[in-house]
Amino acid sequence: MSDATPGASCPLPAPGPSVLLAHGGGGRLSQQLLEGTFLPALSNPELEARHDGALLEAAGARLAFTTDAYVVDPLEFPGGDIGSLAVHGTVNDLAMCGARPRWLSAAFVLEEGLPLELLQRVTRSLARAAEAAGVQVVTGDTKVVDRGRGHGLYLTTSGVGVVEHGLRIGPSQVRPGDAILLSGDLGRHGVAILAVREGLAFETTIESDSAPVHEPVLALLAAGLDVHCLRDATRGGLASALVEVAEAAGVGCTLDEQAIPVLDEVQGACELLGLDPLQVANEGRFVCVLPEAQAEAALAILRAHPVSAGAVEIGRVHADSPGLVGVETGLGSTRLLDMLSGEQLPRIC
Amino acid sequence: MSDATPGASCPLPAPGPSVLLAHGGGGRLSQQLLEGTFLPALSNPELEARHDGALLEAAGARLAFTTDAYVVDPLEFPGGDIGSLAVHGTVNDLAMCGARPRWLSAAFVLEEGLPLELLQRVTRSLARAAEAAGVQVVTGDTKVVDRGRGHGLYLTTSGVGVVEHGLRIGPSQVRPGDAILLSGDLGRHGVAILAVREGLAFETTIESDSAPVHEPVLALLAAGLDVHCLRDATRGGLASALVEVAEAAGVGCTLDEQAIPVLDEVQGACELLGLDPLQVANEGRFVCVLPEAQAEAALAILRAHPVSAGAVEIGRVHADSPGLVGVETGLGSTRLLDMLSGEQLPRIC
Repeated sequence: MSDATPGASCPLPAPGPSVLLAHGGGGRLSQQLLEGTFLPALSNPELEARHDGALLEAAGARLAFTTDAYVVDPLEFPGGDIGSLAVHGTVNDLAMCGARPRWLSAAFVLEEGLPLELLQRVTRSLARAAEAAGVQVVTGDTKVVDRGRGHGLYLTTSGVGVVEHGLRIGPSQVRPGDAILLSGDLGRHGVAILAVREGLAFETTIESDSAPVHEPVLALLAAGLDVHCLRDATRGGLASALVEVAEAAGVGCTLDEQAIPVLDEVQGACELLGLDPLQVANEGRFVCVLPEAQAEAALAILRAHPVSAGAVEIGRVHADSPGLVGVETGLGSTRLLDMLSGEQLPRIC
Repeated sequence: MSDATPGASCPLPAPGPSVLLAHGGGGRLSQQLLEGTFLPALSNPELEARHDGALLEAAGARLAFTTDAYVVDPLEFPGGDIGSLAVHGTVNDLAMCGARPRWLSAAFVLEEGLPLELLQRVTRSLARAAEAAGVQVVTGDTKVVDRGRGHGLYLTTSGVGVVEHGLRIGPSQVRPGDAILLSGDLGRHGVAILAVREGLAFETTIESDSAPVHEPVLALLAAGLDVHCLRDATRGGLASALVEVAEAAGVGCTLDEQAIPVLDEVQGACELLGLDPLQVANEGRFVCVLPEAQAEAALAILRAHPVSAGAVEIGRVHADSPGLVGVETGLGSTRLLDMLSGEQLPRIC
């Protein structure tokens, strides 16, 4: 048995349609995989609601439950690593449900040969991020795969949070006339990862924006604001997040490009790389849609928290052109945003 | 960007101690990884309790929360596949906490090139297993890694269940004099996987025992029996499960080898493969420890459910030789059980 060869049964390659890298990009192909494979098999109202997490009612308690697999490459990057990223991503998904994040699970798939020291560093980072976000990692699992069948480590975190308000939050609540708020500048996570991975010639000091955003979100809810929809701008960026909301809500959105904050350094890197900053992943940025009359109050609350100090109003919801998101450029023209459709940005989270 | 090469930053190989396949085997090295890496960083009472899941109190509700990563090779095997296995494993972990399984999450890490048809088959199997076990898959995630960085697919499921009784269940409740019950015959899951993987010469009709066991467990609790400890005999088999309980509880256990059911075909395959059936993984078998006076009543309840129709009493707990599990062979001698210590059975779940 010592010469066992797990892997002899590898199902690849095969004829017929197969999984592409772009299926994981968070754009159109991801949506097709969801609609073509997962929803038909697993259909239920919670899954079809396509939140960042599910809302559950358990023995009288209202809970949110979410999961994310992290396959980011490299494992450590400017501003974070796979451990802190997983905590922030899961905390933020719970926050997007309007829930107070409480408990996390962590399941590691390790590749044989991973340096233990790296694993320990990532685990300590995960622990620090959890403590800083006020959540406990209460359960976990570890599996090991043979060398060449993984990539150092993959990490799946799931989270459970408690919903302490009575609002329904989601695309179905979005109304024409609503204001669209963005919590800060865009594109830093994706550019930070790509700069390391591609060994880009330009010197960059850009760090990921990876951070927990539950505190400003809970502050909006505690203030009694009528939050209609929350969505973090992760894989696929602001574009995919807003197109998803517009399609699900059956509304149109118009954004003011000049109002959308992008650091000069990020803008420059995106031009070099041929990327649209509105399609680049963020890990500490979210969109909040709520009645225009409450926009100023909401911005004041967001700006009082360091993680959303750069919050701005970037556009409006309207009844025209349902499912479409237009961006008014400074030149008097409007371009339509689309979800990411290629594989420009694999393994960004 | 189309020639991006994620993977250039692969952290392997490196000097210093590194992850071995045996770290994932569920035995001594798995325990060392937990004690040396995860617990020091993440220490909290729930994680240290080392249940199959965590017990939470959320807004007055008592919940169980668990996670498992599945990396089984091959993805499909006699009696199941990675989809049904993940559902059964997570349902059973919740059952081992004494909880009623309710909601699952599913996070897929797909390898570029995975046939979509295989993904759809596994997803349908996952959905059928969830429906049969009365749980809903309410949230999920999908990531894609480049060809050669995965192995078809890895799947992490997490579960949330509701605790409907007032018992504390775990090693700390185990008392000298308790009876040790086993829910059925051992070794079928591990042997079924190995027979496929190794292309063994012997023809076998052995199927995995993969199945949900929550119904008999909930029936024991509903009957008011004083269940002290529940543990499923997965990775590392009965041996690892009972050694863990004996060490954590500070008690000794003595088993009657002739009382432990192992199919002739499984026994024969284990002899051929040089395996101890007590160390082979099961995915539908569990141990229940409770007062000897309640053993007969418990066995009657277990035997009324098909999944545990073969339940038997296999031994007793005593105060002697704490931390040790002895097996009385039919020949008048006693052998000590130990956790699996090598890498005989990688990627069995």
